[in-house]
Amino acid sequence: MQSMPFVRITLATGTDDGACARVGDAVHHALVSAANVPKDDLFQVVELLPPASLRVTPAYLGIDHSSDVAIVQVFLNAGRSVEVKKALYAAIAEGVAAAAGLRREDVVVSLVEVGKENWSFGSGLMSYPP
Amino acid sequence: MQSMPFVRITLATGTDDGACARVGDAVHHALVSAANVPKDDLFQVVELLPPASLRVTPAYLGIDHSSDVAIVQVFLNAGRSVEVKKALYAAIAEGVAAAAGLRREDVVVSLVEVGKENWSFGSGLMSYPP
Amino acid sequence: MQSMPFVRITLATGTDDGACARVGDAVHHALVSAANVPKDDLFQVVELLPPASLRVTPAYLGIDHSSDVAIVQVFLNAGRSVEVKKALYAAIAEGVAAAAGLRREDVVVSLVEVGKENWSFGSGLMSYPP
Repeated sequence: MQSMPFVRITLATGTDDGACARVGDAVHHALVSAANVPKDDLFQVVELLPPASLRVTPAYLGIDHSSDVAIVQVFLNAGRSVEVKKALYAAIAEGVAAAAGLRREDVVVSLVEVGKENWSFGSGLMSYPP
Repeated sequence: MQSMPFVRITLATGTDDGACARVGDAVHHALVSAANVPKDDLFQVVELLPPASLRVTPAYLGIDHSSDVAIVQVFLNAGRSVEVKKALYAAIAEGVAAAAGLRREDVVVSLVEVGKENWSFGSGLMSYPP
Repeated sequence: MQSMPFVRITLATGTDDGACARVGDAVHHALVSAANVPKDDLFQVVELLPPASLRVTPAYLGIDHSSDVAIVQVFLNAGRSVEVKKALYAAIAEGVAAAAGLRREDVVVSLVEVGKENWSFGSGLMSYPP
């Protein structure tokens, strides 16, 4: 059982009202298609912050960044392979860039892996007991 | 030494002004009573975001979600047992539901475990040196 | 390869407009000088929240806290030594206190360590493939 991601997406204000839903859906589609997450396993916070709150290097390791970035942090169960993670990064960058009108270079992804006993998706119950 | 949680709680705007304190206190009480956290070990961010920022599945694994949810993310030292985690989930759901006027089904909890050397609660000092 | 931190800094509103940049730069300088992070490896969210959103104990383990705190959460690759972490805490507290006009006692730091395959800093590519 490797599902139950919790996703926090940070975008700059100034995007239109539908951006939260569109970008959130794009990230979820990437998780479903590339990382075997169940379609109904959707738990996200999409925050819109002033541009001064998103601070990203102009360039690092050969990738240029503009001032218009998206930061996608995914908390998920440990155990995905390197190949799955690579596919996930590609799918998130492609989907978020299209959904938010950003460059693919400006989609930053951070994964944080946790144990499967670390989730309760409601009702005070452990979601994946051992 | 298993204390020093840092807690981030995400609620939808529209709750009353006292909600941050009430919900924060409820989560802290759950940590103290169920997970052996010292009473004075309280470090929280409680954020209120527009409803569009909180995106949760309508239903997953038999639990229905409304549009009025609370997301509780707890960063804490590794080592709690499965039984302690189960008790913690139950206590958080019960306390937050009462404090925020939510259904217990709509309280989502995510734990992220870290090493005990990973905290400095002030003055630039490592809080739990090895 | 131990770089690519992602940093989330939480400050209370009421600070001046330049606080995001000053405090962010101070944390980055600490990472570069104390934890061997490349100068161009900067990825941060600096959020300003109402004072009621930052909830910190009045005192814990002998350190007093005021109502004016900064919370610095650093997600970074695993592997820093205890000595490096101690130096990092000291550097962050000193730099943030000066940049934000806070007491060093009121700078709280939380580290979350991840695997090096867990980053994509842009273009959908894994930043540090094995």
